Amino acid sequence: MATIDLNSDVGESFGRWSLGDDLAMFGSVSSANVACGFHAGDPSVIRRTCREAAAAGVAIGAHVGYRDLAGFGRRFMDISPAELADDVVYQIGALQALAAVEGTQVRYVKPHGGLYNAIVTHTAQAQAVVDAVKSVDPNLPILGLPGSEVLRLAEKAGLRAVTEAFADRSYNPDGSLVSRSLPGAVLEDPEQVAEHVLRMATESAVRAIDGSTFKIRAESICVHGDSSGAVAMATAVKSALGDAGVSIGSFL
Amino acid sequence: MATIDLNSDVGESFGRWSLGDDLAMFGSVSSANVACGFHAGDPSVIRRTCREAAAAGVAIGAHVGYRDLAGFGRRFMDISPAELADDVVYQIGALQALAAVEGTQVRYVKPHGGLYNAIVTHTAQAQAVVDAVKSVDPNLPILGLPGSEVLRLAEKAGLRAVTEAFADRSYNPDGSLVSRSLPGAVLEDPEQVAEHVLRMATESAVRAIDGSTFKIRAESICVHGDSSGAVAMATAVKSALGDAGVSIGSFL
Amino acid sequence: MATIDLNSDVGESFGRWSLGDDLAMFGSVSSANVACGFHAGDPSVIRRTCREAAAAGVAIGAHVGYRDLAGFGRRFMDISPAELADDVVYQIGALQALAAVEGTQVRYVKPHGGLYNAIVTHTAQAQAVVDAVKSVDPNLPILGLPGSEVLRLAEKAGLRAVTEAFADRSYNPDGSLVSRSLPGAVLEDPEQVAEHVLRMATESAVRAIDGSTFKIRAESICVHGDSSGAVAMATAVKSALGDAGVSIGSFL
Amino acid sequence: MATIDLNSDVGESFGRWSLGDDLAMFGSVSSANVACGFHAGDPSVIRRTCREAAAAGVAIGAHVGYRDLAGFGRRFMDISPAELADDVVYQIGALQALAAVEGTQVRYVKPHGGLYNAIVTHTAQAQAVVDAVKSVDPNLPILGLPGSEVLRLAEKAGLRAVTEAFADRSYNPDGSLVSRSLPGAVLEDPEQVAEHVLRMATESAVRAIDGSTFKIRAESICVHGDSSGAVAMATAVKSALGDAGVSIGSFL
Repeated sequence: MATIDLNSDVGESFGRWSLGDDLAMFGSVSSANVACGFHAGDPSVIRRTCREAAAAGVAIGAHVGYRDLAGFGRRFMDISPAELADDVVYQIGALQALAAVEGTQVRYVKPHGGLYNAIVTHTAQAQAVVDAVKSVDPNLPILGLPGSEVLRLAEKAGLRAVTEAFADRSYNPDGSLVSRSLPGAVLEDPEQVAEHVLRMATESAVRAIDGSTFKIRAESICVHGDSSGAVAMATAVKSALGDAGVSIGSFL
Repeated sequence: MATIDLNSDVGESFGRWSLGDDLAMFGSVSSANVACGFHAGDPSVIRRTCREAAAAGVAIGAHVGYRDLAGFGRRFMDISPAELADDVVYQIGALQALAAVEGTQVRYVKPHGGLYNAIVTHTAQAQAVVDAVKSVDPNLPILGLPGSEVLRLAEKAGLRAVTEAFADRSYNPDGSLVSRSLPGAVLEDPEQVAEHVLRMATESAVRAIDGSTFKIRAESICVHGDSSGAVAMATAVKSALGDAGVSIGSFL
Repeated sequence: MATIDLNSDVGESFGRWSLGDDLAMFGSVSSANVACGFHAGDPSVIRRTCREAAAAGVAIGAHVGYRDLAGFGRRFMDISPAELADDVVYQIGALQALAAVEGTQVRYVKPHGGLYNAIVTHTAQAQAVVDAVKSVDPNLPILGLPGSEVLRLAEKAGLRAVTEAFADRSYNPDGSLVSRSLPGAVLEDPEQVAEHVLRMATESAVRAIDGSTFKIRAESICVHGDSSGAVAMATAVKSALGDAGVSIGSFL
Repeated sequence: MATIDLNSDVGESFGRWSLGDDLAMFGSVSSANVACGFHAGDPSVIRRTCREAAAAGVAIGAHVGYRDLAGFGRRFMDISPAELADDVVYQIGALQALAAVEGTQVRYVKPHGGLYNAIVTHTAQAQAVVDAVKSVDPNLPILGLPGSEVLRLAEKAGLRAVTEAFADRSYNPDGSLVSRSLPGAVLEDPEQVAEHVLRMATESAVRAIDGSTFKIRAESICVHGDSSGAVAMATAVKSALGDAGVSIGSFL
């Protein structure tokens, strides 16, 4: 029976502010990208998220980001590679401790938002992330975009590079994501999303926005958890995969 | 030959702002209370501090504090015990990771500033700190004021409680510190400080501000590192201890 | 026709995090306590809130708080009076500029959360708030709890002190609020809340939790805007007041 | 008698961390770029700086920056123009209030660090700064690099654009600054700096790093205040200008 990993961003509440229904998402996904406090997530949120992920049997990853609460880590920052590496080590360590006190552990790293996007092409920041992860634990895989600098450099450094696709994003025929500024960039119909994911999981293929099809190698599929329809969408994806005989399970 | 531990607050620079001459202090002290980012210390500062401490053979402690950069962690915050415990776990974990990538490790915990003062008497916050430390590693000692709630609760929880005295602070005859708002509260003459420390280390005694003497049990002596004369003072203390045949070494 | 002011906390979103439905609340209230960035509210949130308040004809007040995003300004901080005063001036000024670029202005000040509670009794912090407000503009009224230090000191300083009552909070027979840690502290039934407010507005009276009644002098009534039923509650209050021939209008 | 404006960055301390000797700099400069809290400067620091600047007869400008304390506002941030504009309004307003309570006022705006550099060429961010300044007060001049987008757009918007040169920076023959990553980029000899400034002030000329000379139009000259030799350098510049019969005075 085929297995695919579904990952989702969680632990993104902060103090008085709630975001997403992490507990509900844990019913559908196998990997939890837990915010580490720099773009979202305070220590109590992080700890509770680790506890709930562990209870649900969901693998915990460190969702490391730029130090930018006001921008939710979505804005590119021209931080020096050395400082970025140290920021990443700090965040992983903080999450490791909170995971450990809940009897679980950090199993992988996924860069967040602006950092995620930057290190698709920004070699120096990508290398900094790879250096940081390797220095903490060379057994931690990095989750990223197929073809990205960060995954290329991770492999070069001997780290496991895990590719991911996006359940609710449209693709261009060349495999890149349709810019969020264009119409149709984000899929909002649960059925369409489920079909999208099914094709990724069972055919290793994506139907692009122009109707053409291309092959994709994705060991994990990202399901967003912070929109209003997130839980319904994740449930639809899980159900469609189940019907097709594809089980959901960590890439680990 | 008698041995005494000297501890000092380090890693308190932040971004563009420098504070203290940590490297120079490492020539005199045996324990480094490293800021963990909540009251001071950014990840790059923390990492460099760990590297330099390790190179100097100085033991690293987690100097955990309130989340208050603007107030340097010196202002009491009425944070809930559960949140405080999580903040402490987060800070220790972050420091552990940065220490580990520099080939060293966190050996003890010392609460900072407003938190240090609060948990002399604030039972709930003291218990939160103890719970946090124990949850991370029950082998981590906590450094605190003799007679404080935090040390009482640490011992009760099976943690090692390490008492400290202050090299440059005047004491009342009852063993409490003279309030900083009173004249003579802080000793500024290196010779007087050296004499103060020598009496603590060799006679387990303190001469109070009224001239009377009382016994003190201090396994470590705190030497401040952030004043202009800090390095000269630490050097004077080290020299006086050496002349008296007292060596400086970690309490571990 | 009698008139009563209804005030509500708004502008409390921050970056990616939304809180409350300010626009809906502006349909029911006459005064908007706008967060100023220290406990909540980023500049874009604040500006949009000012624009919407102005469009709805709702008076804008500066909802100044402790510098504590992680704690939403709800935790007491033992900040020095001088620093607190400067923090308050800074926040009012920032809001004034954002209000001005939207063609409106700041008309009053209401301390938030932990600061609000502290200056019921904390004379030094209360005086700092009064000093700050007076230094910015002696024509700015301060909104606070009847009998509080801050209102006493405001009047002494020649500022207008505006008293408020709480629409959804239970009172003890002595006029104090029932602690949130006790059952029944917060009223959740819109009808009960409407009745509570009606009695305050038309009889200057409150029925306490034990069934007894006492007189209250409240020039404004606070309607909370950040709970799930906030808008429904505000609408119920507005409707009940309208039925009783009481109009809603600013205390200014 | 010729007059030239000297401007310097001040108010860059933050909480426990001191930076620069603002009071000493006020003995030599005529314009004070006061940090507004986003990259440096807490409200108490800002207020004291305003008080001291006013007492010294130094004009106050708003030194607005990216929201990045850890990076001191030196790192480019890809913030949206709308959010940037709101951040700038917020900062100016906060400074205006603190200046006003000290009996003085904000007279101009100078973007700081990473923002300053970005808006030499980044049209959208430059326009955002111009929009923000104009919305607050169209009489506030903007200080910037000759030939920069921000000054071009400021003039287009009807704002006064004030050009500045740098006392301690080497120039390329084309008028651009020698990159800090190259040797000789920063002048450290007070005499050389004084000569540099004198040529700017009396001949409207700069001797480039290759020995060639070019014309420069600078209404103000920036003297850095945060290096160890800053005060000595400013004093040397003032003395050299005085000897040459050039007085120091605001560009206003």
